[in-house]
Amino acid sequence: MADSKAITTRADDFSAWYNDVIMRAELADYSPVRGCMVIRPNGYAIWEQMQAALDRMFKDTGHQNAYFPLFIPQSFLAKEAQHVEGFAPETAVVTRGGGKELDEPLVVRPTSETIIYAMYAKWIQSWRDLPVLINQWANVVRWELRTRLFLRTTEFLWQEGHTAHATEAEAEAETLLILGVYRQFMEEWMAMPVIIGPKTESERFAGALRTYACEALMQDNKALQAGTSHNLGQNFAKAFGVEFQTAEGGLEHVWSTSWGVSTRLVGGLIMTHSDDKGLVCPPRLAQWQVVIVPIWRSDDEREQTCAAAAVMMKDLRGAGIRVTTDLRDMKPGAKYYEWEARGAPFRLELGPRDLANQSVMLARRLGGKEAVPMAGLAVRLQQEMATMQQALFDAAKARQAAATLRGPRSKQEFIDFIEGNGGFVYAGWCGDPAVEAEIKEQTKATIRCLPMPEFRSPEAPTTCIWTGRPATVEAVWARAY
Amino acid sequence: MADSKAITTRADDFSAWYNDVIMRAELADYSPVRGCMVIRPNGYAIWEQMQAALDRMFKDTGHQNAYFPLFIPQSFLAKEAQHVEGFAPETAVVTRGGGKELDEPLVVRPTSETIIYAMYAKWIQSWRDLPVLINQWANVVRWELRTRLFLRTTEFLWQEGHTAHATEAEAEAETLLILGVYRQFMEEWMAMPVIIGPKTESERFAGALRTYACEALMQDNKALQAGTSHNLGQNFAKAFGVEFQTAEGGLEHVWSTSWGVSTRLVGGLIMTHSDDKGLVCPPRLAQWQVVIVPIWRSDDEREQTCAAAAVMMKDLRGAGIRVTTDLRDMKPGAKYYEWEARGAPFRLELGPRDLANQSVMLARRLGGKEAVPMAGLAVRLQQEMATMQQALFDAAKARQAAATLRGPRSKQEFIDFIEGNGGFVYAGWCGDPAVEAEIKEQTKATIRCLPMPEFRSPEAPTTCIWTGRPATVEAVWARAY
Repeated sequence: MADSKAITTRADDFSAWYNDVIMRAELADYSPVRGCMVIRPNGYAIWEQMQAALDRMFKDTGHQNAYFPLFIPQSFLAKEAQHVEGFAPETAVVTRGGGKELDEPLVVRPTSETIIYAMYAKWIQSWRDLPVLINQWANVVRWELRTRLFLRTTEFLWQEGHTAHATEAEAEAETLLILGVYRQFMEEWMAMPVIIGPKTESERFAGALRTYACEALMQDNKALQAGTSHNLGQNFAKAFGVEFQTAEGGLEHVWSTSWGVSTRLVGGLIMTHSDDKGLVCPPRLAQWQVVIVPIWRSDDEREQTCAAAAVMMKDLRGAGIRVTTDLRDMKPGAKYYEWEARGAPFRLELGPRDLANQSVMLARRLGGKEAVPMAGLAVRLQQEMATMQQALFDAAKARQAAATLRGPRSKQEFIDFIEGNGGFVYAGWCGDPAVEAEIKEQTKATIRCLPMPEFRSPEAPTTCIWTGRPATVEAVWARAY
Repeated sequence: MADSKAITTRADDFSAWYNDVIMRAELADYSPVRGCMVIRPNGYAIWEQMQAALDRMFKDTGHQNAYFPLFIPQSFLAKEAQHVEGFAPETAVVTRGGGKELDEPLVVRPTSETIIYAMYAKWIQSWRDLPVLINQWANVVRWELRTRLFLRTTEFLWQEGHTAHATEAEAEAETLLILGVYRQFMEEWMAMPVIIGPKTESERFAGALRTYACEALMQDNKALQAGTSHNLGQNFAKAFGVEFQTAEGGLEHVWSTSWGVSTRLVGGLIMTHSDDKGLVCPPRLAQWQVVIVPIWRSDDEREQTCAAAAVMMKDLRGAGIRVTTDLRDMKPGAKYYEWEARGAPFRLELGPRDLANQSVMLARRLGGKEAVPMAGLAVRLQQEMATMQQALFDAAKARQAAATLRGPRSKQEFIDFIEGNGGFVYAGWCGDPAVEAEIKEQTKATIRCLPMPEFRSPEAPTTCIWTGRPATVEAVWARAY
């Protein structure tokens, strides 16, 4: 049943707007289980499109899927010191099974490095077994205190890649390869521009040598960490004894990586593009790219327009367009309203007059309506979709640029920007973690990443924006989800 | 690393053979977690092909995917009396989260009826909201005492459909529709013939009105329950208060169904087709339908044959064939041996002489090798795959027929058959559960199903095979996994 109450506007309350969009589009719902959400069919369909695109990209770069157990013996988590420190406090623990207390409690995986490296130790013997390039699509559980639909839930769905390599250079190349895959997916499929770069030590994955992130900026100018790719060095290999015989006959620990994106991306998509009428979805990820709405006033007209809609749907599907027809016995206006809230990129209104003219009324989710000839409709829609996809990206990119401050001249300007409309601030940093912590404490802004060269300012900052000491790097700050 | 020890023969020890096939083909592995398996890339690829085919069939019959929480409040399970009795003893229970004891323990879902009906109660208000046709791909956990790779594991992957309807007739139609989808998938994709029909009360799903099953016969003449479709009546709707306003303005409980198949199907596929050389996989579900093995003795030859293999692979992929090339620096014979164990349906051996002749050596997994011209290779392979797919089904069907006894003349003949080579026995049954239990106790044979009309014997049995009393139905017995 569609929830028909009005959507709060973004200007009024961004957070309420976000929830309203999700409820009205029936993307997800709260569940009776603390912190866990239900992903409803309309929301899951977007995740399926995301999975299909990412999975293709992973396979095209040589990765295979596998599946590892949900449960991890508690002792495994403890084998990598930083890892257990990072994850133990937020685990869900199974202590009873089959009616009995377990000898060793089982942790519901918060991430799978430990169980996977236990297997890699068994599978990897020689340099001939390397690289191992495995990905897993799975659910994971992290006991979050404050949860938000899609963005932070106790259980979430994700993919986690886990690779093992013979050399440090190969592991680093893999880490960056995947960072690039993520960026490409976010920009070309989600139409969501990101900046990329390594995290500081305080934001690093528990047990990693280096963590790289893709950071996007939402419409409220808060940053969203959208995906991370970790170079784990030999940390987990040493903890789990993953050794291989080198081509020269020596024995070495493998170098490994892990990387993941999650259903959080659906939240990112919503907050990047949607408007006060509801969801706006990039055509490449929409469950239905086109919705046909036949219009009738009599049974005769109903028969005619529905028959024509069926032919049209078949043609468009044949051309590879994801299209559905809304045959429900409802007023057309109510259908338009609903499909707008659900984010269908295009609507085709098909009434008796359109039929007579051999045309159809094309309505765009981003606005505008025009009669277009039925002949060549599929090609026209393909063009419209490409145009919309690009328009969404361009608009998001322009918004990001408008909400970016490079090189504030003073600490106060930095603070004013963060406490005003907010956004990304590029500034110099002395590299001192205590300073990073103090900025976070005082402004709630965190270092999102140390930007990769292509994102850096033309002139490298020379002083730390907070201390005035010499800057060792340029960093990007923002308040974040 | 490939496990190179010989595979136990089926004649020697069927159970050891099954495990050896899995290990040699690297389909799965034992994990350090009690009863949980790791599905390795070669095994997961088969599951992915199964998922893709089934998912298409579900969507073509109007179903959508969604995702519900992994955790279920313990009190939910108790709301349907038979359900809790059936599942409570085999649950894994989370009692700690985020470092604290939970007020109410959470059960790791053994199946999702309870959490799903709690949501349906919220979503369904009116007859306009019906039917609800939702499927979920998920992991579930049942605390099994004796586990076997793929066939019975503590955690397994499956799909579970959950639908709600306005009438009992619609729910029954849905239950049977899905039973038909399962049968079609098993026969046309897995090349695994099945018999279908309702289960007896003792084998019914906990909380169902009726359970229908697809039952296959493995090469050791033991039955495998391969999929079930349940008509739940109004049991769960009443337990969770899922009511709707009828078109006439009344208030009624919905009628619902649930249905599932799991990674157990991979085990069924292995035990239906494989041989003493390893896995045999039907082409429609094979990760790689064709493997190209270039052959060389010099660097020049290597360059030539690998280049030709690349062109060939591109052509075949363009024709929609799943093909890979084995470029490893290994003897061709070792590669052949490995790809046979892994179940690749066809191998193309490509040496300098083949290149000169513009032909390639086609080797079939089922036996036979012949030189075929490169021209028209894709079409030829499509034909070969169709032939192999049919041959596998025909062979399995013939094996099933040979291991089927219809209308034993005496109780002793029934017992001798079951205790001999085994298989399906069709015989009359008086309908008394005590007799069913006694047969199970004495022969280890259970009633697999009460066969649907098309499977029944031409002459309906008149007496119960065990008691001599009048038969109420024809039943099919077998020892089962």
